[in-house]
Formats: sequence, C-alpha cells, structure tokens
Amino acid sequence: MSEDLYSMKEAMIYSQRIAHLSKALWKAVEKDWQAWIKPYDLNINEHHVLSIASNLKGASISDIAKFGVMHVSTAFNFSKNLEERGLLSFSKRNDDKRNTYVEITEKGHLLLKDLNDSYEKSNHTVVEGSLPLKEMYGKFPQFLELLAVIRNIYGDDFMDIFEESFRNMEKQL
Amino acid sequence: MSEDLYSMKEAMIYSQRIAHLSKALWKAVEKDWQAWIKPYDLNINEHHVLSIASNLKGASISDIAKFGVMHVSTAFNFSKNLEERGLLSFSKRNDDKRNTYVEITEKGHLLLKDLNDSYEKSNHTVVEGSLPLKEMYGKFPQFLELLAVIRNIYGDDFMDIFEESFRNMEKQL
Repeated sequence: MSEDLYSMKEAMIYSQRIAHLSKALWKAVEKDWQAWIKPYDLNINEHHVLSIASNLKGASISDIAKFGVMHVSTAFNFSKNLEERGLLSFSKRNDDKRNTYVEITEKGHLLLKDLNDSYEKSNHTVVEGSLPLKEMYGKFPQFLELLAVIRNIYGDDFMDIFEESFRNMEKQL
Repeated sequence: MSEDLYSMKEAMIYSQRIAHLSKALWKAVEKDWQAWIKPYDLNINEHHVLSIASNLKGASISDIAKFGVMHVSTAFNFSKNLEERGLLSFSKRNDDKRNTYVEITEKGHLLLKDLNDSYEKSNHTVVEGSLPLKEMYGKFPQFLELLAVIRNIYGDDFMDIFEESFRNMEKQL
C-alpha cells in the first residue's frame, strides 16, 4: 500500500466505517429486494441473473458471474435453475465451444414484466429513505463517490456494462 | 408513497441501481473483512458484536441487534459463542431483569487489539479503491448521501451511536 498517503489507523477506521455502512445499506436493500421477488419464487441471485441476461444480449456464464458479483459456480447453478424453469435458454457458440451462453426466453421476459408491474405494491424502504434528498436536490442521489470506489475495485468494464444495463432497462420499461 | 414526487419507473430504476451498487460494495467489503478476521476464528457478525460491545459500554442484546443490523436471535447466538470463548461476559441489571447485557472482557480487548495490530498485513481492496479519491480531495470519501439515506432508514439514534462508536474507536487506537 502507498503508506505515505495515509496512516494505518486512518485506513482501519475508514475501512470499518465503510464496512458498517455497507452492511446497514445491504441489509435494507436485501429486505426490499426479497419482499419484491418473493411471490415469484425467485431469490436475489436468480433475479440478478435474469436481469443481466435481459439487459446484456447473449451473456456468457462468466459475464453473469462478473456483472452479478458472484462465483462462476453460483452463476452457473442459478442459471441452471432458471433454465429448468424455462426462463433462460443455454447455448454454445461455434467460435467458442468452452463457454455456455444464456439468453432470456419469452417466458423469462414475461416474468420480469410481471415483476416490474408489481413493483408498486412492494416495500420501498430504501426509496423512501432517499426521498428527502430527492426533495432537496430535485433528483435521487447519485452516489458519485461510491461509483468511483466501485469503478476502482471492479474496473471500467464493470461500470460501463453497469451503466449500459440501466440504459437498456430504461428503454425497455 | 408520495407519488407526486416521482414516477414508479424512476423509483424502480433507482432502487435497482442502488441494489446492484450495494451488492457490489458489500461483496468487496465482506471479502476484505473475512480475510482480516479469519486467523482469529471469528465471523463477521461475531467481530461486529465484539466491536459494538467494546465501543458501547454496557450494551444490551437488543442494542447489539439494532446497531449490528442483525436479528435479536442472531445477536444472542453470536454473543453466546463469544461468551463461551471468554471474550464477552453476560449480566442482568437489577432495574431491568428482562434484558441481557454484555460487556467485553479483558481477553476480548486483547483479541481486538491483536486484530487491529494485524490489520496492516491484510487485504485492503476497498481502501485501495478509495485512494484515488483521497489523493484528489485530501481525505477518504465521506459518503454523505449514503449517510443521509441510512439515517432516514435506521433513525437518528442509530447514526448517533454509529458516530459515537467511531469516536471511541479513534480514542482507543
């Protein structure tokens, strides 16, 4: 580490601050997310895989793992569950026999559409907690520092795909 | 929800953005945290309970649950493990027979000190990913928008204790 830039004490306090904040945020996000998708018999990773497959046309299992922040084996197992339910289809490519590619099926699209339509009726703890900022600034918070930290950890490629998925989601809705 | 302030589409995209960002941040935090405490045979919740007990003098199990963002039963079970290892001691108060209070023992303090001394040798993905911001602004990011959202979700009390624990940690280090 570039120790000239900071003391160990400073780094340790900062890393515990962000750890505790991140845990608190994730627990609230997780609760909202689980409550939303529960009626559709999906878990968070399965919904995440399905969204990535819908937003990235022709994703490989390693893309799913990378952009879903999960192990390749986790990405594969959850994709397999979704394939068995007819929500994803698997394929191999002639020019790349080693990787498995997944594509969302019509049934998968319909399920995502249903889920989106039911969003309104669900819990929105995190959205509600962000409303005072929206009132003050006229828009939802952008978390630019957080985006920068995540870009540094996961790379430009990760963030580019992240932004592209959200542009696609916006168009599809 | 106050629907005049935002459209459902806007809320849904925002909540998925923050969900995916929060997941990515938490996975990086979790990895660093686990790697740091692993040699001490602690899991994240046990370390969190121990830190809270050290920073809040005389915390009840419900305080631990609240400030550690875990279920009361989880807080109790992990506290029990720590008590069996002699790192925490349990007590009842005469004026409050219903709650169990926990206090960190001398052995618990020594373990936390050891852990802090070993921080340098551990992984620091999140700290490293925050360094470009530190170089640019002269300090580590403060995540003020995130703090505001978490304050709205968990309440002023939660944030006051959060800030107090970090002031205590700073003094103790």
